[in-house]
Amino acid sequence: MSGSLPPLSLSILGVEPLDEFILEVADFIHHTIMTRPSNEELGVNESRIEVEAKVGTLKDKSTNMRLQLPILVETILTPGFDVRFESNMTIRQHQHYNQQLNKLHVTSTQPGHPSSPVGYAHHYLIDSFYGTDRDGRVRVTRDEKTNEVESVRKIKLANLEIYSPKRQADWRVTVSLECPVQHPVGQAMHTRRKDRLSYKHEEFSIDLTQVTANEAGTSNLLHELELEILRPELIMSLAAKRGDPNVSEMERGGFDELIRAFVNNARILVKNAGDP
Amino acid sequence: MSGSLPPLSLSILGVEPLDEFILEVADFIHHTIMTRPSNEELGVNESRIEVEAKVGTLKDKSTNMRLQLPILVETILTPGFDVRFESNMTIRQHQHYNQQLNKLHVTSTQPGHPSSPVGYAHHYLIDSFYGTDRDGRVRVTRDEKTNEVESVRKIKLANLEIYSPKRQADWRVTVSLECPVQHPVGQAMHTRRKDRLSYKHEEFSIDLTQVTANEAGTSNLLHELELEILRPELIMSLAAKRGDPNVSEMERGGFDELIRAFVNNARILVKNAGDP
Repeated sequence: MSGSLPPLSLSILGVEPLDEFILEVADFIHHTIMTRPSNEELGVNESRIEVEAKVGTLKDKSTNMRLQLPILVETILTPGFDVRFESNMTIRQHQHYNQQLNKLHVTSTQPGHPSSPVGYAHHYLIDSFYGTDRDGRVRVTRDEKTNEVESVRKIKLANLEIYSPKRQADWRVTVSLECPVQHPVGQAMHTRRKDRLSYKHEEFSIDLTQVTANEAGTSNLLHELELEILRPELIMSLAAKRGDPNVSEMERGGFDELIRAFVNNARILVKNAGDP
Repeated sequence: MSGSLPPLSLSILGVEPLDEFILEVADFIHHTIMTRPSNEELGVNESRIEVEAKVGTLKDKSTNMRLQLPILVETILTPGFDVRFESNMTIRQHQHYNQQLNKLHVTSTQPGHPSSPVGYAHHYLIDSFYGTDRDGRVRVTRDEKTNEVESVRKIKLANLEIYSPKRQADWRVTVSLECPVQHPVGQAMHTRRKDRLSYKHEEFSIDLTQVTANEAGTSNLLHELELEILRPELIMSLAAKRGDPNVSEMERGGFDELIRAFVNNARILVKNAGDP
């Protein structure tokens, strides 16, 4: 009898303890949303929130090598800690993600799969940038297949870096505002071409992108992986109800539920990073 | 409709990602058990494994202040990182734990409590230490109420430190061997008196202890909190079956289940540390 485990409670309190990692990410995103500049302050008519996680590498600025801290498992860095995040990976890692996500796209439509189907789309996009000021800069994106054109000013509000020493990649959460603006006049400063595989699952998009940037006569190829929450209006609505005692418990907790799935997905992506 | 959250899968894979923190602790304990010295190597007839978590403070050796790393949430330190762990807290924190645990002891026997009852016992113990060599040293413990006497050699095998910057305390996991030995002859080097409140829950004991140490004519009062896995034979049996393809999935995963509850309990204790 002593050899096998009797039924065990989750803890002395009978519940899982709070996951302080997920709560920290949710607090960060919520705080950034709630303290964002108004459209008046930005001088725009409209803005929508963008919450995304980028998979890449945290680099020590002095050595240009991957960050090294005396810790064994993933953790969140203190904002202001002087580190550089590279939103890039090797072509081999990119191909590895491509294979895994294609496989998931196929298996997710088969009976018995434990989650809803993962959609797939292939986009060819051209970004042209106008203006030099970081926050004033306008990005014009043209879809090469549909010829749809969108002009936005993107204003980065805050980043949170996650160091993941057990994995081949780190990640960064970024909260931004995207403000639709008029198509700018004049000459684009530089352009980039994006070959994007977009995998859609429920409220999220996983975008695996090859970016060819053209600037000052040189061309530069980057491999990016981003996880984005698809609906800005859902984020805003859930953020407004977070912790509100006048709404139902489910509505009150909706924001944290959304961020929980967001963090889970980011963790799964980072865990599955292949060898460089 | 856009305002509320539709039912959401746990992730793109439909499952929670692996908790790398709990897995790291389980791997550490399992590795330490599997590579422990034999009774022959130790020159003893018998040994039993002890797995415990102590609540205390990680201190920077150069400043004697609490460790500071540029991170926001709990994480596991790399073994070998030069830091000191103090198994101590203020009397106020000790009283705070005492109140909370007494309350839990009472509410846990009431209907509707989500977990099994928490037992309670008060022990007065006197430890006498014989010998000077750290691993050769023998501890004789006498229970002042029952007059039961136990002589053991305790051999510390390994520590794992957990830094918890959001909380008022850090913690350390220690794996040791306790070897029952003959009562030593001669004079004790020093003694300590332990006033211990012991809260028992399922496979765990939470020991809140006031330790008065007497050494070289001075007396020193410490306040300790330890979480211990109660049955060494259960730990050994589950560790042996961990990952074994020839046993049932439940038996194979029993070790990690036990460590999951152990980590959950340690996290709950640390989270509830009061102000110093």
